[in-house]
Amino acid sequence: MVAPSIRVAPSAANRALNLLRTVQYTHPPSCPCHSNPNHHHHHRTPTLADHVRRHMATPVDPSRQKEYAFEMAASSIRFGPGATKEVGMDFANMQAKRVCIVTDQNVSKLDAMKQAVEGLSREGIEFTVFDKVRIEPKDYSIKEAIAFAKPYNPDAFLAVGGGSVIDTAKLMNLYTVYPEADFLDFVNAPLGKGLPVERKLKPLVAVPTTAGTGSETTGTAIFDLVSKKAKTGIAHRNLKPTLGICDPLNTRTMPSAVHASSGLDVLCHSLESWTAIPYNERTPRPTNPINRPAYQGANPISDIFSLQALRDTVKYLPRAVKDPDDFEAQSKMLLAATLAGVGFGNAGVHLCHGMSYPISSQNPGYKHAGYDVEHPIIPHGVSVAVTAPAVFRFTAASNPDRHLAAAEPSASTSRTSSAKAQPRGLKDLGFKSSDIDSLVEGTIPQKRVLMLAPNLNEELEAEKIELRGLLEQSMDY
Amino acid sequence: MVAPSIRVAPSAANRALNLLRTVQYTHPPSCPCHSNPNHHHHHRTPTLADHVRRHMATPVDPSRQKEYAFEMAASSIRFGPGATKEVGMDFANMQAKRVCIVTDQNVSKLDAMKQAVEGLSREGIEFTVFDKVRIEPKDYSIKEAIAFAKPYNPDAFLAVGGGSVIDTAKLMNLYTVYPEADFLDFVNAPLGKGLPVERKLKPLVAVPTTAGTGSETTGTAIFDLVSKKAKTGIAHRNLKPTLGICDPLNTRTMPSAVHASSGLDVLCHSLESWTAIPYNERTPRPTNPINRPAYQGANPISDIFSLQALRDTVKYLPRAVKDPDDFEAQSKMLLAATLAGVGFGNAGVHLCHGMSYPISSQNPGYKHAGYDVEHPIIPHGVSVAVTAPAVFRFTAASNPDRHLAAAEPSASTSRTSSAKAQPRGLKDLGFKSSDIDSLVEGTIPQKRVLMLAPNLNEELEAEKIELRGLLEQSMDY
Repeated sequence: MVAPSIRVAPSAANRALNLLRTVQYTHPPSCPCHSNPNHHHHHRTPTLADHVRRHMATPVDPSRQKEYAFEMAASSIRFGPGATKEVGMDFANMQAKRVCIVTDQNVSKLDAMKQAVEGLSREGIEFTVFDKVRIEPKDYSIKEAIAFAKPYNPDAFLAVGGGSVIDTAKLMNLYTVYPEADFLDFVNAPLGKGLPVERKLKPLVAVPTTAGTGSETTGTAIFDLVSKKAKTGIAHRNLKPTLGICDPLNTRTMPSAVHASSGLDVLCHSLESWTAIPYNERTPRPTNPINRPAYQGANPISDIFSLQALRDTVKYLPRAVKDPDDFEAQSKMLLAATLAGVGFGNAGVHLCHGMSYPISSQNPGYKHAGYDVEHPIIPHGVSVAVTAPAVFRFTAASNPDRHLAAAEPSASTSRTSSAKAQPRGLKDLGFKSSDIDSLVEGTIPQKRVLMLAPNLNEELEAEKIELRGLLEQSMDY
Repeated sequence: MVAPSIRVAPSAANRALNLLRTVQYTHPPSCPCHSNPNHHHHHRTPTLADHVRRHMATPVDPSRQKEYAFEMAASSIRFGPGATKEVGMDFANMQAKRVCIVTDQNVSKLDAMKQAVEGLSREGIEFTVFDKVRIEPKDYSIKEAIAFAKPYNPDAFLAVGGGSVIDTAKLMNLYTVYPEADFLDFVNAPLGKGLPVERKLKPLVAVPTTAGTGSETTGTAIFDLVSKKAKTGIAHRNLKPTLGICDPLNTRTMPSAVHASSGLDVLCHSLESWTAIPYNERTPRPTNPINRPAYQGANPISDIFSLQALRDTVKYLPRAVKDPDDFEAQSKMLLAATLAGVGFGNAGVHLCHGMSYPISSQNPGYKHAGYDVEHPIIPHGVSVAVTAPAVFRFTAASNPDRHLAAAEPSASTSRTSSAKAQPRGLKDLGFKSSDIDSLVEGTIPQKRVLMLAPNLNEELEAEKIELRGLLEQSMDY
């Protein structure tokens, strides 16, 4: 399951795999309004009268009612080698006159940016370039980007880069359309106010240059809120790009280390969204559809994307990391990253991502090899994958059938090597046992994802004990 | 494959199934820029240099170049029993002040409309109702609807009904935003000019009351162009609704005959999009992305939707038709219809749909039992399914692996009964052998779908002979 790519810990991963294999397969509940992990089989098909009783009963407090609907939204996706050069025509077609291009210092030198700039120039569209995106953004780097965009007042945005670039561009767009808003207004509760995005944002075209975050399809933007020592973000489906242009020629330039760590992110996106609680077990039921979270729990449409992404990742990630000339594997990984983006963008992630945020923001000084930045960095994919073996052992009990299905595609490839040394637990990242309490405290506010974790105790002290256990198991393999 | 639901022709269907089973399974080409039905296996992984050579070669005439990219776009989809009542809040959230509700005489009396009207009223949003949509619309019925919408000048549309209603609402939206346009400007070439939809249309929310067309997710609208004796339409991804609200409580009201025929439509949507030529075998490569057709050929994302829809249809359609109280099967069919809509909306359909248009518009007088309309009617699902056994026997040779994969999910259910008598070939619909030439002539202009048919001869006279053969085989089982 998590074995092939983490592969740092073959024995732990094999244990998890074996555990999954020993549990009995049962069919998932198939009626969307009656699914319940304890009742997988109806002895009687529910009649219309049952449904009317259920759905038209006396109103009760919505905060205690479970969700009854799910909503699927994704950016349009264009996929093809060389498609980046079409982007100028896209802005012309949408009558954009003044575009803000967002990128970072490394990507600004790459062919993807060259294609984008040439495309806009060919169409005679005015543009400016903000190339100071910080990899693994912090609130101050986001605010600097917003301060750049506001006076330029673009009528469209173009992000060329990895998840950090695309996420930063989303927030430049948001706060240009809401110039009077306080930065915390939209930040995920409880750290911020978590207000919904009601205004229509400007068009944003995202051209990913990594195969990882899937940010080109989602309404999520992640950053480090320095004052709270917590990684958090802003998430609303109205934040999603208009169009994602996935051009496999652009991921050729990824260093092998970036292939590996961004691929681990894809793996965790697909596994976490696939194993998240079902949407109709989530509370509360929103009273207005605009408050239905994008991270809504697993549902029949996100499932299709998550499982396909998982299968493709297990098959192609080892090849993509091993051989920089394996263009087929790299293309498949770019598509898998996007598919996983649609999956988790409409279902959510849970424990690996929840714990990854304090792991990244409390980085004791680790700097991952192969990342061309000046500051210490635990790549996002590494910070999510480091707890994966412990997490999926823990969650397997809640929904054995799903975990077994997840284990299947990887069984034949579990010996495949990803060829790059990855850290073997939190210790390799520089964390000590004495840091665990602080990591637990940094995880607790990640309500938006923790609420989707299957099997996690809802009572605060019990939840802390469970998180501490997962982090302790993740110290060393 | 087509056996379970057509089931009118167990022997023909079984023959098709057996044919599919006897062909050898081979893996589909997996590199998106090199797939070629004649070269399923690379002896050497293509290197970057190969790609550069291919993609950066001397420019050639684009009309001869094959496509190199695909684009996936779909309406947002909300699914849940009772979700219709949220629609008033959706219009309030998008700040709509003046909504045109579109429906037909039958649906206007149903609970779906009651929920919609109450929802808008609760939010204090002004609205008007156009309830004169014609089932299986004709150009004059569409024009009547447009003439209603123009003076009202709504800022948003709400369609409540089946495919005829949703398609009509799309065109009311289009021609309200393009008030000066000639009706034929946007009609599919060669019957119309096939211009792309460049302006941004008004928000359209679609609430399907049948599980068939998938129109709530697509940019396609189909109608009968009376002067040309041809069913055709308007298709552009910018025509797609903003949001589809799929509420299984709304399909409870479908008569059993509508369940059956709309289910056949879902089956053909999924089978035709799954077996359409691959997007990168399509010519010409568009020089501007706005001209990339929504019906672009099978691609890795449409495939996921089409295959899932096929599996669900084979499993749940017989139950949905047989037992009007089987709410689980009905819910699954509504979801399958929507999934198939995303699949064919981004891949296209081919021969069954291409021939269905003249079959419907040259109806000799057949009136399908269970349809509450005053005029003769061959339901769309019946007109597509009647040629399916002949079509998939014909296309199986082009891509045996795909046809075999399509046959698999149905193998165990091929004996299941759909319980309702369906016409046993074109003869049962009143067609005579002497009508075949006219049906062939009515099929030839359906370029948009015929170009996606695998195995069809491109030379006109040879194409006519093949179409005639398919129609002759479809006369009687």
